[in-house]
Amino acid sequence: MSVDYKAYFAEHRETHLNELKEWLAIPSISALSEHKGDVLKAAEWVADKLKTAGLEHVEIHPTQGHPVVTADYLHAEGKPTLLIYGHYDVQPVDPLHLWQTPPFEPDIRDGKLYARGATDDKGQLFLHVKAIEAILKQEKELPVNIKFCIEGEEEISSPNLPLYLADNTDKLAADAILISDTSLLAPGKPAISTGLRGLCSMELSLNTANTDLHSGSYGGGVPNALHAMVSLLASLHDAQGRVSVDGFYEGVQELSSEMREEFAKQNFDEDQLKKDLGLDALFGEEGFSFVERVGARPTLELNGVWGGFQGEGSKTVIPKEAHAKITCRLVADQDPQKVMDAIEAHLKAHTPVGAQLSFTPKEKAFAFNIDPNHPFLQKAADAFENVYGTRALFTKDGGSIPIVEKLSSTLNAPAVMMGFGLPDENLHAPNEHFNLENFDKGLLTIVDYLKQI
Amino acid sequence: MSVDYKAYFAEHRETHLNELKEWLAIPSISALSEHKGDVLKAAEWVADKLKTAGLEHVEIHPTQGHPVVTADYLHAEGKPTLLIYGHYDVQPVDPLHLWQTPPFEPDIRDGKLYARGATDDKGQLFLHVKAIEAILKQEKELPVNIKFCIEGEEEISSPNLPLYLADNTDKLAADAILISDTSLLAPGKPAISTGLRGLCSMELSLNTANTDLHSGSYGGGVPNALHAMVSLLASLHDAQGRVSVDGFYEGVQELSSEMREEFAKQNFDEDQLKKDLGLDALFGEEGFSFVERVGARPTLELNGVWGGFQGEGSKTVIPKEAHAKITCRLVADQDPQKVMDAIEAHLKAHTPVGAQLSFTPKEKAFAFNIDPNHPFLQKAADAFENVYGTRALFTKDGGSIPIVEKLSSTLNAPAVMMGFGLPDENLHAPNEHFNLENFDKGLLTIVDYLKQI
Repeated sequence: MSVDYKAYFAEHRETHLNELKEWLAIPSISALSEHKGDVLKAAEWVADKLKTAGLEHVEIHPTQGHPVVTADYLHAEGKPTLLIYGHYDVQPVDPLHLWQTPPFEPDIRDGKLYARGATDDKGQLFLHVKAIEAILKQEKELPVNIKFCIEGEEEISSPNLPLYLADNTDKLAADAILISDTSLLAPGKPAISTGLRGLCSMELSLNTANTDLHSGSYGGGVPNALHAMVSLLASLHDAQGRVSVDGFYEGVQELSSEMREEFAKQNFDEDQLKKDLGLDALFGEEGFSFVERVGARPTLELNGVWGGFQGEGSKTVIPKEAHAKITCRLVADQDPQKVMDAIEAHLKAHTPVGAQLSFTPKEKAFAFNIDPNHPFLQKAADAFENVYGTRALFTKDGGSIPIVEKLSSTLNAPAVMMGFGLPDENLHAPNEHFNLENFDKGLLTIVDYLKQI
Repeated sequence: MSVDYKAYFAEHRETHLNELKEWLAIPSISALSEHKGDVLKAAEWVADKLKTAGLEHVEIHPTQGHPVVTADYLHAEGKPTLLIYGHYDVQPVDPLHLWQTPPFEPDIRDGKLYARGATDDKGQLFLHVKAIEAILKQEKELPVNIKFCIEGEEEISSPNLPLYLADNTDKLAADAILISDTSLLAPGKPAISTGLRGLCSMELSLNTANTDLHSGSYGGGVPNALHAMVSLLASLHDAQGRVSVDGFYEGVQELSSEMREEFAKQNFDEDQLKKDLGLDALFGEEGFSFVERVGARPTLELNGVWGGFQGEGSKTVIPKEAHAKITCRLVADQDPQKVMDAIEAHLKAHTPVGAQLSFTPKEKAFAFNIDPNHPFLQKAADAFENVYGTRALFTKDGGSIPIVEKLSSTLNAPAVMMGFGLPDENLHAPNEHFNLENFDKGLLTIVDYLKQI
């Protein structure tokens, strides 16, 4: 590099962070319909920044849900084309009272930028915009061809992007897809994810009587929707945390000794994790380490359960209804539809006497896996090594980015997942943040990667 | 009766109902601290009406919680003294969206007065005030000595009345305690309750990690507070609805064949109940009928359970905490403190790995029972017979009025429970109402009873 990018980014650091804070202040929560306007605002904001960065054909495409933003810069003849994918929508923020500073009032403390979306994914996506802007400003040209495809529905499992993709395969065609929506293993330990878990989500309700009943007049003589619900939900796991649903594990691969070695390389410190999370014990399927459980095993999680009286004081009521939200993370060849069908059948078979089940399937996505020996992945590991001084490990990530599998299969291109987050940055939880060390190194790593390929 | 009370009450019906509506419009929810002012307002309202009715020494006594209202009229020398007990506080109203008309905008439809507190207990207590007013207005004297003791904490298990009682035993001394806070068996089928279940209530929380976690990054590898909670709560009952807590049934009497005969006399129609509640099955301990389960068996009910995300859409979160509210109804010699201790021990023993239990005991009250052959009870049955044309049955009520046992044992006087509600009047539930047929007959029955003793 003849140009000193380190100096450039240092000089522009404050401006960049102020810009990012502006974006983070927009509450673009895709799951909540009252934030539809904010989600659009976040799309317009990034479109504007893409233009300022020098990208061409910046467009905001309406969908049935939230819009897709695209842009390109295709002037590097004979060079490969990278499609950069990211998302400008964020997770809901409750429980709000656990945030130390409000989720949409970005705040920098101890070298970390706190805000909803700071690491997932506005902060990480922002690095690509600014890296490209830097190269164009300094060198007036890009070493590769670049396309952007930025959506506003990742946190609700990308319901509309697949259709947009199918209709725009040529427009988005690329040699590789570049995504920064994952994490380093730990500070200073970069990683490239070669696997993402799939996902399916569902909601269920149990109804008993047609009205709430007084526990004095009826208690002991009629079904209680909450009793039915806890009994039904408890039947989903055995005491060791293994999912008890018939057929749930269909398509899951047994871990080969080679895979186990790859996981062991991470030297993951389970005791430190327990300490960090304030837990006296981890919990999960027997016979697997934490990284194996999260990276290579499926899970069925209760994300919300509620029914009856939640207010102050006591209310002697027998509730007529109870509700639950469930998501599963899937691996290998598990078929999300089959998993949901198996869970529905289990719930039907185990619904207690006197209760009526209603079951609503929601999102679904297959797991994604890629061979770490692909040259585009090896070059990414080189770029990390150049900036961090440590070669990236190839990991399996427990999270799901449902669209990655869709992008990769539709465009027939490998997905290169260079994550700049950290595992403890509270994504999807209160006090989400982005460590600014990786903000700084991320910019340099991306510039290095674009120059190498 | 030389005086025509039927004509009197018919003439004043509209005025009486309008007055009652005024009272019902005051949201005197004792469980919610933001309604403290309303609870006081409801106390002042009834004090005012007692004065208007002609009662003497009307007083509002502050307590650590909500005030006690007392009054008397002690001019029937040589005649017995009746202490009339009732309460002016009401239950919370959620779920609010299930009310057909707002809970504190009283509305008469199809001969029923709809409002929170309509039957429990403002409506029933109001009958006593108006019955006494009627006698005093018409005959200038009462056939018995009357005392009133009205509290504002019945729905939160009367935490402060026992102390007031202990300090005022002489002031409240009576030959019998008269209470209208129970129900007829069915329209036209009066009942006198000879038993009330005791009660204990408690809250619990389970905590896992020190923060909510992303189900992608952690799912399958860490404890989930909701998994722990449903597993723990499911352990409280067996599949047949019997409570699985060691020691829970200590002090429960086996049903004698005599008691079973008394229950059978009610000719309770379980099929009709199922139809009314829209249930395909009743549910409870095997070997007992519905009236036996509710009248003579204890129960452990989940009144509220919650944790995680309850909003619109999906949130892939592993919740760090989950909560539950529990009440038990107790019978015979069950000791509420021992029951709570047994439940706490069970919860501790069954708390899953990785979760921390916190347990908070709340209210407690012993069950109450009285011999139906007591002359004050037999006279009450006569009064019902005179007005309803059917002699009252002696029943065991599933509900709890914790203070009844306290009143009766402290004052060493029998409690006469003449209820004018109906079992399906949704007390503690949305659309609580009071059937005005029993409003009319209740007034006449009380006048008749006061004249007989």
